[in-house]
Amino acid sequence: MNEIPARIGAPLDEVETPALVIDLDAFDSNLRKMAAFAATAGVRLRPPAKTHKCPIIAQRQIAAGAVGQCCQKVGEAEALVRGGVHDVLVSNEIVGAQKLRRLAALAGDATIALCFDSPDQVGAASRAATEARVTLGGMVEIDVGMQRCGVATPEAARELAQRVADAPGLEFRGLQAYHGSAQHLATWEERRHAIDGAATIVRRTLDNLRSAGLDCPIVSGAGSGTFRMEGTSGLWNELQAGSYLFMDTEYARIGGEGGTRYDEFAHSLFVLATVMSTPATDRAVVDAGLKSYSAEKGLPWVHAMPGIESVGASDEHGKLRVGADARPLRLGDKVMLIPGHCDPTINLHDWYVCVRGGRVESVWPITARGAST
Amino acid sequence: MNEIPARIGAPLDEVETPALVIDLDAFDSNLRKMAAFAATAGVRLRPPAKTHKCPIIAQRQIAAGAVGQCCQKVGEAEALVRGGVHDVLVSNEIVGAQKLRRLAALAGDATIALCFDSPDQVGAASRAATEARVTLGGMVEIDVGMQRCGVATPEAARELAQRVADAPGLEFRGLQAYHGSAQHLATWEERRHAIDGAATIVRRTLDNLRSAGLDCPIVSGAGSGTFRMEGTSGLWNELQAGSYLFMDTEYARIGGEGGTRYDEFAHSLFVLATVMSTPATDRAVVDAGLKSYSAEKGLPWVHAMPGIESVGASDEHGKLRVGADARPLRLGDKVMLIPGHCDPTINLHDWYVCVRGGRVESVWPITARGAST
Repeated sequence: MNEIPARIGAPLDEVETPALVIDLDAFDSNLRKMAAFAATAGVRLRPPAKTHKCPIIAQRQIAAGAVGQCCQKVGEAEALVRGGVHDVLVSNEIVGAQKLRRLAALAGDATIALCFDSPDQVGAASRAATEARVTLGGMVEIDVGMQRCGVATPEAARELAQRVADAPGLEFRGLQAYHGSAQHLATWEERRHAIDGAATIVRRTLDNLRSAGLDCPIVSGAGSGTFRMEGTSGLWNELQAGSYLFMDTEYARIGGEGGTRYDEFAHSLFVLATVMSTPATDRAVVDAGLKSYSAEKGLPWVHAMPGIESVGASDEHGKLRVGADARPLRLGDKVMLIPGHCDPTINLHDWYVCVRGGRVESVWPITARGAST
Repeated sequence: MNEIPARIGAPLDEVETPALVIDLDAFDSNLRKMAAFAATAGVRLRPPAKTHKCPIIAQRQIAAGAVGQCCQKVGEAEALVRGGVHDVLVSNEIVGAQKLRRLAALAGDATIALCFDSPDQVGAASRAATEARVTLGGMVEIDVGMQRCGVATPEAARELAQRVADAPGLEFRGLQAYHGSAQHLATWEERRHAIDGAATIVRRTLDNLRSAGLDCPIVSGAGSGTFRMEGTSGLWNELQAGSYLFMDTEYARIGGEGGTRYDEFAHSLFVLATVMSTPATDRAVVDAGLKSYSAEKGLPWVHAMPGIESVGASDEHGKLRVGADARPLRLGDKVMLIPGHCDPTINLHDWYVCVRGGRVESVWPITARGAST
């Protein structure tokens, strides 16, 4: 873990760069809005720690009403339980005896569940749970349209649910029905169409489970692009939205309802960078590149500097084009960049530098950074 | 730092995934080949630690003849000096009093240099050096065609070199003349053309320095795509190639001399992943995604599994298409992925798992992972 990049109380200008900065006013507002939506809709909120990687943030979400957290990896679940989170769903398939042992070891201290999409997994998870004398919750992942993991038919879901329900040490908890690829579809109507399709699959699966006498307490899914759809569907009763805390350019590019901008959440996450070279009047170079933000969803946007845009990124350089009408940049100037994709950007950093009113209010360790096993 | 992912002596199959794996036979061969080239060409080798982020690897390169290391950030220089490297060039501009103080603090224990491309930097660096009672080497970065940092004309280079030479605590060491964007041009001939252009700029700059009576001991630059050109130019006398140790798909896609494959170095770096879902006969999902490899240069390649290819990556999932003629994948199977871009991929991991003959020979900490300040 790298050294703490900021002194509490310091002005933003004194923070060592590159730094991952949270605008706490925007962050708090985003946190409250999603909590209010879930409360009003009468659904549970289980945000993904894969986004923030930080037990302090998990605890803030839980304090605002979330039932717990979901995550993708055993290593993330370990970081959450060590950080005092008592209810964790690994919303992913876990393969391998050693990983399952690590997961079962957490179930003595917390409510732990994982996903299944193959009967071959069930025996191994059951063994790990019984050896550790714990119960692991089991969610059956169904493919609701993203064609990644998940069983393909309601019948296969019912058979797998029955197998989980029958396995010693496991308890069938419900369905994992997350449509990841719907989240960034360009228009509200495309996302609506995708989630309508997902809802049909969920409904058929629930009917099939019911016909077999299988109780399905939880249907979990949704993300920051579609949570209103799942949350008001009457089918999903648990939401896994996470990016709403931070937003990124990928979410900023999608449309809202009726062709509006999709802007109910504010950008709260930035990479703070310093201008380190101004070799031409139309060019400046900052000290943040591919090791400070992920770029597979495009270059970061420059925040609140009209006429200045990212035009290139290498390992430790971000190249900016400075328009003729822009305020010129000078060596040492600070630039706030909005990342293309929040999750893998956060995973590059060891600390959040949390800022309010232009000053560092706190620094939060990104405890689960790199916890991919 | 995450836990050590492997037991020494363990077979590759037992390594916790995802893991960053080095094939030591290929790595050693790559290391030797570049060292032999530099020795034969009579040029110095100063590989970039931004690639490997690991003092153990730096020491192996030095033991094979490298004069030291270059790096991009003060944090990397700190990790190198703490790891026993005695000669470090920060091949980048450093802006900010605190960063310069940190850099100067290293110069008591090691030979330290940094780059300049603006007269405004010189005073600050000089102050940091004199306050710490050390000498910092100064390289003048010239733009040899990549249009990132670097001064634009031979006259500006000479003026800046003179200013560095005159500044207390600084010593003019030479030119930083790195053409990064030439490294991945598709054909040898395009790279040849780019480096010919760079050579013209270097020659004019050297003439200009000479006419002012300024001695220029070092001309440093080159990367793994063009090192033979700079190394035999009679102009550059120090090479900064680094990716040759590992290679990646970006280098695998470029051509060699006369339309051949560019294959004198072998892929030695892999992300080891486990199949965690096989939801359809033509699809498998592995447990390594955007947090295990960088994807801005494209999806990873699947190593040595004909008919199987990467078709998608999300945070912790890699989606594979399994062709009709491929050997089917089963849950728990291991897959070796070749990253698109080695440097930012390595920066995601805490450990190299070093393998020879199918067994773990050693694990090396990636000490400077995330050291971007």
